[in-house]
Amino acid sequence: MAAERRIAVCDLGSNSFRLVVFTASEEEHWWRRTDEIHEPVRIGAGLAETGRLSEEGIARALATTEVFAHFCQALGITDIDAVATSAIRDATNAEDFIGRAALPVRVLSKEEEARMGYLAAVNSTTLADGAVLDLGGGSMQLVRVASRHATELQSWPLGAVRMTERFGLGEGTASKKQLKAVREHVAQQLSDAPWLPKSGQRIVGIGGTVRNLAAAVQRAIGVPEFGVQGFVIEHEPLTELVARLAALEPADRAKVPGIKFSRADLILAGAAVVEAVLDLGGFPAIEATEAGLREGVFFANHLKGDPPLFDDVRHASVLNLASQYHYDHAHTEHVARLALTLFDDLAAAGLHPGDARERELLWSACVLHDIGMSVDYDDHHKHSKYLVLNSGLPGFTQREVAIIGQAVRFHRKGMPTPGGFEKILQPGDEEILDRCALLLRLAEDLERSRDQLVRAVDVACHDGAVRLTLQADGDTRVARWAAGREGELFRRAFARELEIAA
Amino acid sequence: MAAERRIAVCDLGSNSFRLVVFTASEEEHWWRRTDEIHEPVRIGAGLAETGRLSEEGIARALATTEVFAHFCQALGITDIDAVATSAIRDATNAEDFIGRAALPVRVLSKEEEARMGYLAAVNSTTLADGAVLDLGGGSMQLVRVASRHATELQSWPLGAVRMTERFGLGEGTASKKQLKAVREHVAQQLSDAPWLPKSGQRIVGIGGTVRNLAAAVQRAIGVPEFGVQGFVIEHEPLTELVARLAALEPADRAKVPGIKFSRADLILAGAAVVEAVLDLGGFPAIEATEAGLREGVFFANHLKGDPPLFDDVRHASVLNLASQYHYDHAHTEHVARLALTLFDDLAAAGLHPGDARERELLWSACVLHDIGMSVDYDDHHKHSKYLVLNSGLPGFTQREVAIIGQAVRFHRKGMPTPGGFEKILQPGDEEILDRCALLLRLAEDLERSRDQLVRAVDVACHDGAVRLTLQADGDTRVARWAAGREGELFRRAFARELEIAA
Repeated sequence: MAAERRIAVCDLGSNSFRLVVFTASEEEHWWRRTDEIHEPVRIGAGLAETGRLSEEGIARALATTEVFAHFCQALGITDIDAVATSAIRDATNAEDFIGRAALPVRVLSKEEEARMGYLAAVNSTTLADGAVLDLGGGSMQLVRVASRHATELQSWPLGAVRMTERFGLGEGTASKKQLKAVREHVAQQLSDAPWLPKSGQRIVGIGGTVRNLAAAVQRAIGVPEFGVQGFVIEHEPLTELVARLAALEPADRAKVPGIKFSRADLILAGAAVVEAVLDLGGFPAIEATEAGLREGVFFANHLKGDPPLFDDVRHASVLNLASQYHYDHAHTEHVARLALTLFDDLAAAGLHPGDARERELLWSACVLHDIGMSVDYDDHHKHSKYLVLNSGLPGFTQREVAIIGQAVRFHRKGMPTPGGFEKILQPGDEEILDRCALLLRLAEDLERSRDQLVRAVDVACHDGAVRLTLQADGDTRVARWAAGREGELFRRAFARELEIAA
Repeated sequence: MAAERRIAVCDLGSNSFRLVVFTASEEEHWWRRTDEIHEPVRIGAGLAETGRLSEEGIARALATTEVFAHFCQALGITDIDAVATSAIRDATNAEDFIGRAALPVRVLSKEEEARMGYLAAVNSTTLADGAVLDLGGGSMQLVRVASRHATELQSWPLGAVRMTERFGLGEGTASKKQLKAVREHVAQQLSDAPWLPKSGQRIVGIGGTVRNLAAAVQRAIGVPEFGVQGFVIEHEPLTELVARLAALEPADRAKVPGIKFSRADLILAGAAVVEAVLDLGGFPAIEATEAGLREGVFFANHLKGDPPLFDDVRHASVLNLASQYHYDHAHTEHVARLALTLFDDLAAAGLHPGDARERELLWSACVLHDIGMSVDYDDHHKHSKYLVLNSGLPGFTQREVAIIGQAVRFHRKGMPTPGGFEKILQPGDEEILDRCALLLRLAEDLERSRDQLVRAVDVACHDGAVRLTLQADGDTRVARWAAGREGELFRRAFARELEIAA
C-alpha cells in the first residue's frame, strides 16, 4: 500500500455539522471521501430574529464537536480543518461556542467561504467563465469566474434557513405575494453585484439545496438518474417546481419525488432564491455538482498552485476513478494507445469525423473499461458501467458519462444500445457510441493476452474493406482470434469489412 | 499482496470450448474466476449420426486449443487442466484431435465427469441428500447424493446437442409426438438408474441449459432477477416453458425473454430432458446453481479432503465474498460479535424468537456490510447490497440473499423496506429484516469509531424499555451519540424504548 494522507474537514454550517474524511494517495494519484458523520445541529435556528446563537443550539453544537473530536482521535486523524460559516460568523455570541468547542474552529470570512465554493465548482466542472452560486443554510455566495479565476467573491445572508424564517415559508402554503417578496429581497440584496448579468452564460450551483433541486427536476422530467453531478437544471422546470412546492404545506413538500424529508421545510426558500438569481443574472440554467464547501476546503489543502486547480478536470476525474481501482495499468494504457491510433488512422482515411471530444470519450472508456474487475470478473463490463455512472465523472456532462458508460458496458460482446439513456442522448450519439465501443473492443482484442505483444497496428483501406496488420514480436494468434469476431460491429460502425493480418 | 495461485481450467465440451482462469489466495481464503475465453466449437455436431468428429469440427477444435495455449503462455499460467467430455470421449476418431492438440487433454470418464458436476453442486448449494443433474451438449450425468457423498455416478448420451439432432428439434415447431418421444427415450435410458425416485426430494441442476431455463422462468413469473444462483425452478412453470418453446420455430425461441440467442436451437431439447427427469424422479422442482463442470474441476484441484468439499458452504460463501474486498477485518468481526451478542441477549429476554437461521443471516450481513466501501464510500451501503446480490452467495436461497442484501442496504440510515423483493419474501420476513438491520446498525454504531473501544454490551429490560450499558476503557461518546439515533427502528423491531448508558 502506498502512503495515504487523511484529513478531516469539519463543516460547521448553519443547518448541519458534518465531518468528512478525505483520503489521498500522492503516489497513486487518487483522492476520495472515506468517512462521514453528521448531525442536524441547526445552530442558525433563531439567528435571524435575535442575532444570537441560542443556548440550545450552542449545547447541541458543543456536544457534536465533542463527538467529532473523539471520532478523529479514535481514527488517529490529526489533520483536522474545522471551518465555521455564516451563522457562527455573524452571531454576536459566537465566542460562547468557539471558546468552548473541542476542536480549534476557523471562522471563514465571507470571501473565504465564497472561495471554497469556487474551488469546489471549478475543480468539478469545466466552468471557465461565468458564476458560482453556493447556497447554504445561513448565507449565499456568488463568485464571478473569468478564465477559471475568481474575480469577484461576495456573500449575502440569503441562506435557506434564514430566508425560510424571514419570509415565513416554513408554515402553511406559500402565496404569490410571499414569493414575490423573496424575489424582491434577493434583487435588492444583489444590487451590489452589478457584474452578475455580465459574467457569462454559465452558472454552477453547489450546496445541498441545489443538489436536492436537481434530483427533484430529474424525477419531474423523467431522465435517467445516476446522481446529480453535471445535471443541468433548466429554468422552466425549476419555475414549475417552485410553484408545485409553494402549493404544498411544508410537511408535504417531501412528497414531491426527489425532495429529501430533512429539507422539506427549507427547500422552497432555497428554490425561490436560486430562481431569482437565474432571473437577475439572465442564466438559462444552473449546473449541479456534487462537490461543495467541504471539497473546496479539501482542494485548498490538497492541490498545489494558486489558485489550487486541476489542470484539466475531465482528465483528472478519469484518472482519479481509474486509480482507485488500479487495475493493470500497463494493459489499460496499451489498450488506450491502440484504440486512439485506430481512431486517428480511421479518421485520416475519411471513415469518421475524428472529433476531438469523441476522442476524449474513447480515451476515457479505454482507461475505465476494466475497473469493474474489482467487483467481479463475471460481468465486469456491467460493473465498470456501474462504477462509471456512480462516480459521475466530474467535468463531463451526463450525456457524455452515459456514452462512456455504454461504451464500457459493451467492451466485450453484444451490439451497443443506448441502454435507457435515449432521453439524454443527442442525434448522432448512437454512432459515436458504436465507434467508441468498437474501437475499445478491437484494442482490447489485440491486447487480449494482456502482454502488450501487439505493439501497433497498420490500417489500410481497399475495396470496401479495412485491413489491420498487426506489428508484434511473436505469434499473434490470440489477438487475431479475438479481433476476428468484431466484423459485425465494424460493419455497423464504419460500413466496411474488417480484415486482420499478422 | 498475498501469494495467489492461478489455474486455467479448459472445458472441451461438445457444444463450446471454454477456458476459465481461477485465482485463489490461500492466505486470504478467497477464490474467484479472473478470466475467461470461449469459442462455440460444436465439436459434437454430427456425432450422433456418424459416431465421429467431423474434419471441420476437429479443425475448429485444434485452432481453439492453440489459442488457449497461447493465452496461458502470455499470461504466464503453467497450471492447466484441460478436460474433454462426452463428445470427445465417445468419438471413434477422438485421437485425431487429442494427438494434435496444443494442450495435454485429459478425457474424463463418465464417472469422472459426473463427479465434477457433483463437486460443483455440493460445493455451491446445501444439498446433502438428493440428486445432481448435469446437462451438457453431449451427455447428461445424474449423481445420487447421500450425506453429501456421491453414491451413484452415471452418464447417458442425453445432452442438448445430441437430443436436438436425434429428435429433429432444431427445425420447425415441435409436435406433442416429438416431445413424447423425447420423454420415452429418457425414461428408457434412465431405467438403469432405479435409485432416482428414492434419492430424496431435492435435485440440483448444473450446466448452461439449466441456467438458461432458470433465467427464462424468472422472467416468466416476474420475480426480481439477480442471477440464477439458488433459484428454484418449479415443475409447473417449466412445463409451461416447454410448451411455449415447442410452439416456436428454433430461430424464434430466443425471443422468449431470458433465452439466450446462442442456445435458441438447443434449449427445447434440454428443457424437455430436464422435465422428463423431474417426472421420473418425482422431484417437485430443480435448483439452479452458477457453478458447473469447470468449478468442479477447480474444486478437485483446490480443496482438501476426500471428497473435496467445503465444511459449510454458506459460511464459505460469505467469507469468500468478504475476503475479496478485505475491508478492515477487525472492525467487521467486532461488529458481528456485538450484533450476535445483542441478538442472543434480546432473545433470552423474550423479545424475539432467536431463530438459528435468522442468526446466520445477521452474521452474514455483519460480515458483508462494508464490502461496498471498495466501490465508493458514498452510498457504500447500496454498493454492498449490489455486491451481495451480484455474488449470489452460493448456499443461500434467493429469499435469504434478499434479506441479507436489504439488511446491508439499511445498515446506516432509513427504515428498512422489502426493496422490490416482496415476491420472494415470506410472511414474517419483514420482521426478520427489521431485526437484522437494527442489530447490525446498533453494533455498527457502537463500533462507529472502528477502534473496538466498546468491548461488550449489557442488556437489561425494564418498564417497556431496553437499556444497553456499554463496557469500555475510555470515553464512549461517539458510540452513544451514534446508537442514540436508533430509537425509532428499535421501537419498530422490538416494541420497546431504547436507552444507552455508559
